[in-house]
Amino acid sequence: MSDAISFDTICAVATPPGTAGLSVVRVSGPSAVAAVRACFSTSVDLDVVPSHTIHYGWWRGGGGVIDSVTCSVYRAPHSYTGEDVIEIGCHGGLHVVDQIMTTLLDSGVRLADPGEFTKRAFLNHKLDLTQVEAVADLIASQSRIGAQTAARQLAGGFTKRLAALRTDLLDVCGLLELELDFSEEDVEFVDKEKLTETLRNIRSYARSLADTASSAEVLRSGFYCAVVGYPNAGKSSLFNALLSRDRAIVSDIAGTTRDYLEETIFVDGYAIHLYDTAGLRETEDSIELQGIRITTSLIEQSDLVLVVNDITVGNAHSDTLCTDLTSRFPDAKVVVVQNKVDGTDIVPANDERKIYCSALTGAGVPELRAFLARRVAESTSAVNDVLVNGRQAALLRSAADSLTQAIDGLGAQVSNEYITVDIRAAIRLLGDITGETWNVDVLDTIFSRFCIGK
Amino acid sequence: MSDAISFDTICAVATPPGTAGLSVVRVSGPSAVAAVRACFSTSVDLDVVPSHTIHYGWWRGGGGVIDSVTCSVYRAPHSYTGEDVIEIGCHGGLHVVDQIMTTLLDSGVRLADPGEFTKRAFLNHKLDLTQVEAVADLIASQSRIGAQTAARQLAGGFTKRLAALRTDLLDVCGLLELELDFSEEDVEFVDKEKLTETLRNIRSYARSLADTASSAEVLRSGFYCAVVGYPNAGKSSLFNALLSRDRAIVSDIAGTTRDYLEETIFVDGYAIHLYDTAGLRETEDSIELQGIRITTSLIEQSDLVLVVNDITVGNAHSDTLCTDLTSRFPDAKVVVVQNKVDGTDIVPANDERKIYCSALTGAGVPELRAFLARRVAESTSAVNDVLVNGRQAALLRSAADSLTQAIDGLGAQVSNEYITVDIRAAIRLLGDITGETWNVDVLDTIFSRFCIGK
Repeated sequence: MSDAISFDTICAVATPPGTAGLSVVRVSGPSAVAAVRACFSTSVDLDVVPSHTIHYGWWRGGGGVIDSVTCSVYRAPHSYTGEDVIEIGCHGGLHVVDQIMTTLLDSGVRLADPGEFTKRAFLNHKLDLTQVEAVADLIASQSRIGAQTAARQLAGGFTKRLAALRTDLLDVCGLLELELDFSEEDVEFVDKEKLTETLRNIRSYARSLADTASSAEVLRSGFYCAVVGYPNAGKSSLFNALLSRDRAIVSDIAGTTRDYLEETIFVDGYAIHLYDTAGLRETEDSIELQGIRITTSLIEQSDLVLVVNDITVGNAHSDTLCTDLTSRFPDAKVVVVQNKVDGTDIVPANDERKIYCSALTGAGVPELRAFLARRVAESTSAVNDVLVNGRQAALLRSAADSLTQAIDGLGAQVSNEYITVDIRAAIRLLGDITGETWNVDVLDTIFSRFCIGK
Repeated sequence: MSDAISFDTICAVATPPGTAGLSVVRVSGPSAVAAVRACFSTSVDLDVVPSHTIHYGWWRGGGGVIDSVTCSVYRAPHSYTGEDVIEIGCHGGLHVVDQIMTTLLDSGVRLADPGEFTKRAFLNHKLDLTQVEAVADLIASQSRIGAQTAARQLAGGFTKRLAALRTDLLDVCGLLELELDFSEEDVEFVDKEKLTETLRNIRSYARSLADTASSAEVLRSGFYCAVVGYPNAGKSSLFNALLSRDRAIVSDIAGTTRDYLEETIFVDGYAIHLYDTAGLRETEDSIELQGIRITTSLIEQSDLVLVVNDITVGNAHSDTLCTDLTSRFPDAKVVVVQNKVDGTDIVPANDERKIYCSALTGAGVPELRAFLARRVAESTSAVNDVLVNGRQAALLRSAADSLTQAIDGLGAQVSNEYITVDIRAAIRLLGDITGETWNVDVLDTIFSRFCIGK
């Protein structure tokens, strides 16, 4: 937590593994320039070139040339990590990257831990923890909307909101403490009613932010949607129709013996994971839900269950299924898809519980896709500039609890001294979100989500 | 083939697909700076910043921020393609890269074809064709030695050799043409014996270079080694022992019904692809080679066949197999691995046709690995700074054929006029290797090997 943290020099491949035109090896630390100079033949002296400049040359090692590379030089503190950083742009071949890494490791540079570059950026005050977590979300986000929200968080969206809350709380504390200084004179500076109102507003805001965590998880990881139904309901055809462009691949896999298929579609920037489940087993003409090869966990982890029904055989199947599902999984959100409308004359209008379509002709499939996107949008509408995660939600709720104590204390006319203790506890908890205070365990948890090279 | 080729502006993701800390989108062409400026918020004016500088800012699109990025600016002609190039370094998330590409494509920048950046580098005289092909090999090479050789070729190893040959041939032509100018005076400037000798040397060198193409292919794609044998010879155990660190995974796969397993080991910088073939089928106690589930093509494409034998049951099996193999595949290189030496007292010394080891105890396995590496090294020893490919070998052989005509003409005292035609044909063919002359089909073939983004 000191400003003067001294680090060793680390390196890692920053780009994804695989072959491509370009790969980038990142080196950061006090001896980054020296380590690179030892292997890099160029016409300039890397020790004196300005920051943010790019130099072309040959990477050498093992007695020969390894590749023609560019070295991008960032000088401390004007780099991602705040340290001297060199990014080596090389040809994206397996052995080129391997050899460059080997020469660096041989020269005493250490392989970076997952997220270690970003950890240094945090420790060197280049990013706060909400921004660090935004970086992880930007990289991992399954949905475009999630990535866009993470980008706004990286731009400081969360930090600004927290700063505003903290300022308000500090103002309240200041007033309470001022009153305390004059307590013997029995002067009342503060309108306790108004102050309670302020604290209630802040508490309510903190709670509502915490409540967006599950929506944020949908934006981060995607919306899970199980497709269930009887055999011959056209379930797999519907799955194919929803995927549209991947139809052939799905058909190929359909013959396998897996319990279910999972594919992701992207609609309006949302990632929707579709599970095509195996058909129901019919035993003695009766359907037993426990006999369905959809595991309990699959239903439980789905944000929506699509019950596919063959409209030409009536509603008995889907009615049974819906009843069984809602009795066994009271929290499950269930929608019926009436399939095979091509085989019937009268097609009712869609509503929020029933969608009519034909996987065969494609009629109604765009509407089903749009319906799914609308459901995701509705379920994530509370999310704005912030992808609240579990850690942050817990801190927000703890801060709200501290504010409850302060509010109760004000109501019970407890001494300002004790009330400010609760408010300061809330301030500290909000500070933990951005990382004004932190401990090693918290950092380890956060950075365990990162890949090596970031 | 003019110097003034005008191109549109292209873009592509240059780094491998996948999520990681960093991905890079490359933009090249006359409107690269303008296209990037439209989306990139930064404190500097990209139109006036110096070449080879890096600028930090926010990428915007679709009404919001997409990511914090760096833009590396290279100004024509001082870039990879020779055009204005901007490399956008962004977070390596699927949706970040997608959104940046979308904003560029929306602004009228075209998605690059495979290898199109390198094609422009060639057309703008930044690389010759041998260097272009070296780039493809650097990226794709399966072996470290192959990548190192490609790097030397990229550094101009092939170009220099060809330039020397061309200079020698031009000298010969010059002399012959000079003599032709004075032909009426019956002066003989040239020692025809010496000249023939020179042409023979060049021809021999061109042929020897062409002959390294198959060795180069081994360095490029790896050395293929089929492991065959009877059931219970310890074939799969030997396969596992050679892989050593991947043993568990291989064991898992061993239960599958595939015809054969393929895994790659890297020994001394060489890539060796091992095929673990299914055991031989025994029918009525007789072994039918045609009944082996090793396909003909598998044996034919192997650079070496390891016949694994259980030493404790004698040599009958391996003798039969070797005889069958060499009669059916006269070109196959066959080595017997006498396995299970742990079950016998007397272990003879290895020779070039027989290796003794125990897959169970690991005894002799390092020696087998070293033996394989030695075989690869021997089979590729002729390769030096050049990874000759099929195109180049064909041109080298055609050039040698033209020189044969010239040599024959000299022997038959044909007029110098006709001899220089043949020598100039050889010079032109050597020039085709570096791309002094080219046609669209040749370029299409070469760049079809490239990935998008290079």
